[in-house]
Amino acid sequence: MPPRQTTDIGKERRAQPREAGQARWRTALTSIAPNKILIRGYPVDEMMGRLSFAEAVYLLLMGELPTPAIGRMFNAILVSSLDHGVTPPSTLAARNVATTGAPMKDSVAAGVLAFGPHHGGDIESCMRFLDSGLAIVRSGKSLQEAATTLVEAFIEDGQVPPGFGHRFHTRDPRAARLFQMALELELEGEHVRMLRGIERALESHHEGFGRVLPVNVDGAIAAISADLGFAYDLGNAVFLISRLPGLIAHAHEERTRQTPMRQIDPKDHDYDGSGERRLPEGRK
Amino acid sequence: MPPRQTTDIGKERRAQPREAGQARWRTALTSIAPNKILIRGYPVDEMMGRLSFAEAVYLLLMGELPTPAIGRMFNAILVSSLDHGVTPPSTLAARNVATTGAPMKDSVAAGVLAFGPHHGGDIESCMRFLDSGLAIVRSGKSLQEAATTLVEAFIEDGQVPPGFGHRFHTRDPRAARLFQMALELELEGEHVRMLRGIERALESHHEGFGRVLPVNVDGAIAAISADLGFAYDLGNAVFLISRLPGLIAHAHEERTRQTPMRQIDPKDHDYDGSGERRLPEGRK
Amino acid sequence: MPPRQTTDIGKERRAQPREAGQARWRTALTSIAPNKILIRGYPVDEMMGRLSFAEAVYLLLMGELPTPAIGRMFNAILVSSLDHGVTPPSTLAARNVATTGAPMKDSVAAGVLAFGPHHGGDIESCMRFLDSGLAIVRSGKSLQEAATTLVEAFIEDGQVPPGFGHRFHTRDPRAARLFQMALELELEGEHVRMLRGIERALESHHEGFGRVLPVNVDGAIAAISADLGFAYDLGNAVFLISRLPGLIAHAHEERTRQTPMRQIDPKDHDYDGSGERRLPEGRK
Amino acid sequence: MPPRQTTDIGKERRAQPREAGQARWRTALTSIAPNKILIRGYPVDEMMGRLSFAEAVYLLLMGELPTPAIGRMFNAILVSSLDHGVTPPSTLAARNVATTGAPMKDSVAAGVLAFGPHHGGDIESCMRFLDSGLAIVRSGKSLQEAATTLVEAFIEDGQVPPGFGHRFHTRDPRAARLFQMALELELEGEHVRMLRGIERALESHHEGFGRVLPVNVDGAIAAISADLGFAYDLGNAVFLISRLPGLIAHAHEERTRQTPMRQIDPKDHDYDGSGERRLPEGRK
Repeated sequence: MPPRQTTDIGKERRAQPREAGQARWRTALTSIAPNKILIRGYPVDEMMGRLSFAEAVYLLLMGELPTPAIGRMFNAILVSSLDHGVTPPSTLAARNVATTGAPMKDSVAAGVLAFGPHHGGDIESCMRFLDSGLAIVRSGKSLQEAATTLVEAFIEDGQVPPGFGHRFHTRDPRAARLFQMALELELEGEHVRMLRGIERALESHHEGFGRVLPVNVDGAIAAISADLGFAYDLGNAVFLISRLPGLIAHAHEERTRQTPMRQIDPKDHDYDGSGERRLPEGRK
Repeated sequence: MPPRQTTDIGKERRAQPREAGQARWRTALTSIAPNKILIRGYPVDEMMGRLSFAEAVYLLLMGELPTPAIGRMFNAILVSSLDHGVTPPSTLAARNVATTGAPMKDSVAAGVLAFGPHHGGDIESCMRFLDSGLAIVRSGKSLQEAATTLVEAFIEDGQVPPGFGHRFHTRDPRAARLFQMALELELEGEHVRMLRGIERALESHHEGFGRVLPVNVDGAIAAISADLGFAYDLGNAVFLISRLPGLIAHAHEERTRQTPMRQIDPKDHDYDGSGERRLPEGRK
Repeated sequence: MPPRQTTDIGKERRAQPREAGQARWRTALTSIAPNKILIRGYPVDEMMGRLSFAEAVYLLLMGELPTPAIGRMFNAILVSSLDHGVTPPSTLAARNVATTGAPMKDSVAAGVLAFGPHHGGDIESCMRFLDSGLAIVRSGKSLQEAATTLVEAFIEDGQVPPGFGHRFHTRDPRAARLFQMALELELEGEHVRMLRGIERALESHHEGFGRVLPVNVDGAIAAISADLGFAYDLGNAVFLISRLPGLIAHAHEERTRQTPMRQIDPKDHDYDGSGERRLPEGRK
Repeated sequence: MPPRQTTDIGKERRAQPREAGQARWRTALTSIAPNKILIRGYPVDEMMGRLSFAEAVYLLLMGELPTPAIGRMFNAILVSSLDHGVTPPSTLAARNVATTGAPMKDSVAAGVLAFGPHHGGDIESCMRFLDSGLAIVRSGKSLQEAATTLVEAFIEDGQVPPGFGHRFHTRDPRAARLFQMALELELEGEHVRMLRGIERALESHHEGFGRVLPVNVDGAIAAISADLGFAYDLGNAVFLISRLPGLIAHAHEERTRQTPMRQIDPKDHDYDGSGERRLPEGRK
C-alpha cells in the first residue's frame, strides 16, 4: 500500500518555489509511443480483460496494482454511491441541463459541479477530520478521548461532523455494507477505528445535536479510503467516479422520457421501474 | 440483451407533444425509501461486493444485469480509454483548471467539456455511421457494397469516417484487443461486421484519403457498444466514464507535482514513472 | 461594419488541411507587453472610462469600435436578456449547484451549460434560418415568397421555427423594444426584414401551428445581431454575456437567503422584491 | 449605496436552521407576468436604451440603480479585465475545449472554471484581507499600524498578500487607471485607503518578499468593489462578467483560425492583429 499523502495541498502550494533550471515538466502516469500505451508501466491492452475497471482505476490513481482484497473493496466503494434517485442537487443540475437539449457531456459536467462541500465534499472533510483525531491520539490521548474532544468541539460550534447524519436514512445501508466488507477483507485501519470511536462519542452526546447522527456513506468511504492511503482530493474524486454513471443515466432518461424545456419539480414524481428483486444465486 | 434504441433523440423531441393531464413525472432508475436504496430494483448494498463496478454501471444504464460475458466485455471497454497521457485537449483543459487552485471537481468538469465532436464524440458519430450502413444493407445491398458506398461518400466530402485513423497510432492496440475479446466472448454482431466491412473498403480506397485509416479505439467501442444495444448518447457516455479517472489522475498530479499558475506546454514534458512491466501471472 | 461570417464552422473544419510549415500560431485579439495591454490595438487603460463595457465587448468580438448608434443598440441587446426569473433551466442549474456550497464560478458554469439548443441556442438557429431565407431571395424569389416557403416547411415537419413563440409571453416586450431601437437608430437590415416577412407568413399560416407564434427576444437578437455582422456562434455568445449576471444574482441569492442542500421546486416560490417602479426622468 | 454584506457565507450556512413552516421560498430579483418582465421592479424594456449594460448589471446585483458616477466606475471595472491574451489558464482551458469542436458555451464554462483561487479568486481574498485590516483599525490601531501587522504576517508565512504582485507587469496600468477614476469620481472609501496603506507597508518591507509587490488589477477591483458595497462572492463575480467576452473571443478565434485537435502551446504564438492605436477624440 503506498504511503498516505496527508499534506494540505492548497496551503503549501502558494509558497512552493519554482525549481530553478527545470527545463521540462514531468508526469508519471501514462507513457505513449506509437502503437503502445503504458499506464503506470502496464500495457493498457494487457490490462483489458485482466483487470476490472475498478482495479485499473486504482492502479492509475495509486500507482500500484491493488491486492485482490483491495480490488474487491474498491469495486464495492464505487458501487456504493452509483445513484441516489432524482432529488440530489447534482441529479437536478444534470437534468436541468438535459432539458435544454444540451449534449450529454454538458449534463455530466453540470452534475459534477454540484458535488460541492455539502454534497460529496464531506468525504474530503471527513478524511481531514479523522486525521485531526489521529493527531490528538499521537499526542498521547486515547482514541476515545480524542473522539470525545472532536465531538464536543462540533457541539459547541453547532455543526454536524462530516460523515455523519443523513437527511433521509437513519441507518445508511451502504455504510453498513462497506464496514462489513472492510472487516471481512481485513482492511480496517486506524481511520475506520477513529470513525467508530467518533460514532460512539456521538451516541453518548446525541442530546448535544438534538438527534441521532449515524455514520453515512460519505463517512464510510472517507475512513476506508484513508486507510487505503488515498490523498484527500482523491477521496473526493472516488465519489465523482462512483456517481458519474448516475448523472449519465438521469440525463439519458430526461432526454428520452421527458419533453424539453420542462420545469423539473424534485418532489412531483413517481417511480415506475422494476419492483424489488434479488441478485441470482450465481453472482458470488 | 435489451432492444437497441436507434432513434435520433434530438430530432424528434422538439415535436413531441406534452402528454395531457400527466400530473407527475416518472423515473425508472432508482427508488429510495428510508434505509433502502434500490437501483433498477436491486438493493445497492446487495450489489456491493457481488457486482463489479462496471457490471453495476451496465445495470444502471441498460436496466438489466449483464451476462458474465458482457460484464467482462464492458469492464474491458471501460479500461480501454482510461488515460492517454498529457497531450489530449481534455487532459490539458483539466490541468489548466487545476493550476489555478480550483477544486478537483472543477478540473474534472472542464475535462469532460473537452470531450467534443472531435475527441470522444466520434463514438456517437461512428454508431450512427454504422447504422446508416446497416440501413443500406436492409435496403437490399450486400454488406461490402454498403461499406463501399459509405466510404466513397466520405472521399467525395474530403472527410475521414468516424472511428478510423489516429494522429499517433497506426494500429490502435486497444481496438485490436476489444475486437479479440468480442470474438472470444461471442459478442460480435452486425455493427462489428459492418465496421469490418468498412475497414476493408478503406484499405482498398486508401489512396482516396492519402493515408491508411486503421480502426481506432473509438470505432471499436462504437461497434461493440452498438452490438450490446447501447443508445447513441450512452455510447458516448461510456467514453466519459472510462476517461474520468484519467482526468482525476492528471488534475491530482498537477496539484501535487507542479507550481500553481504555470503555463502548461503540451510538448515540453518527460515521463518519469514506472518502466514497462507485465501483469503478474495470477491476474487471469 | 465588418463583413459577416456566414460559413458553417463545424462542417468545414474537419477537412481543413493543417498549413504546412506554420511554425507559430497566431492571435489577433490582445497583445501584452510589460505594463501595456492592447486590446485590438487600443490600450485597455485608455478604454476604461471612455468606452462603456458593451462597446468594449463589441470591439473585442468584432475587431473595430462600434459607432455610437451600434454602441447603444448593443447595450440594449445585452440588457434585454439580463434575467428571466427563477424558472428557466439555466437558473435552476445554477441554483442547484449553489445549494451544495460550491464556489460561485461553479454555479455560473453549470448555468452556462444549460444554454442548450432549446434555451438561448435559438439565436444561432434563427440566424441560420434567416440566412437560408435570404439565400432563397438571392435565388430570385421575393422576400415574402421565401418566408412562406420556410414557414410551410416547418409546418410539414411539425416544428416551430427558431426565434418565434414563447411558453409564457404572447408579445415579448424585449423583442418589441429591440425592433423599435433598430428602427430609430437606422440599423435595420436584410435579416430584420426577413424576420418581419416570416412573422407575416406565420400570421397567415397560424392554423398550421395551432397557435400564434409571435417573434421572441431570441429572434430579435438573432436578426439584429446578423445585421450587425456577428458570426453565428457569436450571436449565441451575446446571449451568454447578457445572461451571466442573472446566473450570478440567482446563485448569490441562493447562497445568502436559502438553506443549503434544499430541494429547489421551480413552482413553489413568491416574489418579495421591489414593487413596479419607473426609471427617473434624468436617465436619458 | 446599499449596506455592505461582510459575513462569511460559507461558515454560517451549515448551522442555519431551516425556517419551520416556510411553505414557499422567496426571490427578490425578477418578477415575470405575461408580457411583463420587471428586474428589481423596473420593466426590462424600459431599461433597454436607457441604462448601459453595466448599469443594468449593477442594478440586478445590488438592488438599486447606480449613481452616474458609480455607473461610470462600474463600466470601467468591467472593461479593465476584458482580456489578457492567450496565456492565462482560463484562456487555455477555453481554447482546449474549442479545439475539440465542442459548442461555444462549453468553452466558456471551462474557462469560467479556471477562475480559481490563484486566478481571479484573488479579488475575494483581497476583499477579506482588507476587511481584516479594517477590523484591526476598529480595534484601535492606526491604518498604517494595521497594514504593517498584516504585511508582517504574510512575510512570516512566506506568502504574497492577495491583490499584489504580477508575474508580468511591474506597474499594472489597469490598477492605476481604476484608482485615478475612483479619485476623480469621489468614490474612494476605507477599503481603497486600507489598500494604499498596505502598498506603503509592502514598499518598506519589500526585502521580506525578495521583490517589489505593486498592487495589481485584482487588488484595485477588490478595494473599489468593497467600497461600493459588493459582497465577497459578488466581487469575484464582477471579474467573471468582465472576463467572459475574452473567453468567447478566444474560443471563436480558435474555432475560425486554427485546425481542430491541435496541441495548444501557450508560448509558441505571434500577434498579428491591429497595431497600437488611439481612441478617436470624440470618445469622451
